[in-house]
Amino acid sequence: MRILGIDPGIGRTGFGIIDTSGQKLTAVSYGCIETAAKTEMGRRLTDLYDQIVGLIKEHKPDAVGIEDLFFNTNAKTALIVGQARGVIMLAVSKSKVPLAVYTPLQVKMAVTGYGRAEKGQVAQMVKNLLKLESIPKLDDTTDALAIAVTHAFSYKMKGIK
Amino acid sequence: MRILGIDPGIGRTGFGIIDTSGQKLTAVSYGCIETAAKTEMGRRLTDLYDQIVGLIKEHKPDAVGIEDLFFNTNAKTALIVGQARGVIMLAVSKSKVPLAVYTPLQVKMAVTGYGRAEKGQVAQMVKNLLKLESIPKLDDTTDALAIAVTHAFSYKMKGIK
Repeated sequence: MRILGIDPGIGRTGFGIIDTSGQKLTAVSYGCIETAAKTEMGRRLTDLYDQIVGLIKEHKPDAVGIEDLFFNTNAKTALIVGQARGVIMLAVSKSKVPLAVYTPLQVKMAVTGYGRAEKGQVAQMVKNLLKLESIPKLDDTTDALAIAVTHAFSYKMKGIK
Repeated sequence: MRILGIDPGIGRTGFGIIDTSGQKLTAVSYGCIETAAKTEMGRRLTDLYDQIVGLIKEHKPDAVGIEDLFFNTNAKTALIVGQARGVIMLAVSKSKVPLAVYTPLQVKMAVTGYGRAEKGQVAQMVKNLLKLESIPKLDDTTDALAIAVTHAFSYKMKGIK
């Protein structure tokens, strides 16, 4: 099974594609989609949308995982993240791939077994589980991989094959 | 010149299309796009996106006006409105129609000449300016028409023909 994890943002959207085969997890491709701050919002949203559609077309994931709404921020930030999240959800929906949503707590629990794990611990576990040579440079990328891993684990827990 | 005004929301998105000719404003079409609360978010965003693309294809506006970010709300609401706003901006951007953004203050000033005008006064002026038989039933529709009127007026003020 192939899973695409996404950590949405307008400036940077992390993505991580992994394959699961039995207990084994393999990273296929991961990185960060960036849009230029000086570009007008409609253009940035179009770029983001087109790149997510492109990733799905190229890698054909069986499922997409995305981080749940987070509310520990102000309304201005939430609205802008919401715009990015909206076009990402649209891209997934138009591509007819099932979308699963995970809270930060679920991600920490799934990846480290500990709900209060720190960012560094999550990153280290992502590196170990996927046998990466190093932790990705950008948090957004690591978070996206962590979401993909979370989907892989919760999928197995549900006993769906 | 034909203007499409949009008041974004996930449950209800108001739209108002008007024509300007000299001093005369005419309402072409207006209403409200609704998405069902029980439907999953990706589907709702897809419906909203497709309907905005459809409106633009059918009525071919020369410009779209949308309400500016508003911050007098909590982060949860802002994120959800943001998702709707994101797919609307994407639809406009993909349709290659210029997008203008107006604050609620600008709308009140343009429509009533008074920045502290109440909702009812704005609605009454929209009805008068567009010679509607009655005020639209839903605030979302009236607000969308008010945004279209605002664009018509600010366009004239800039002396662009």
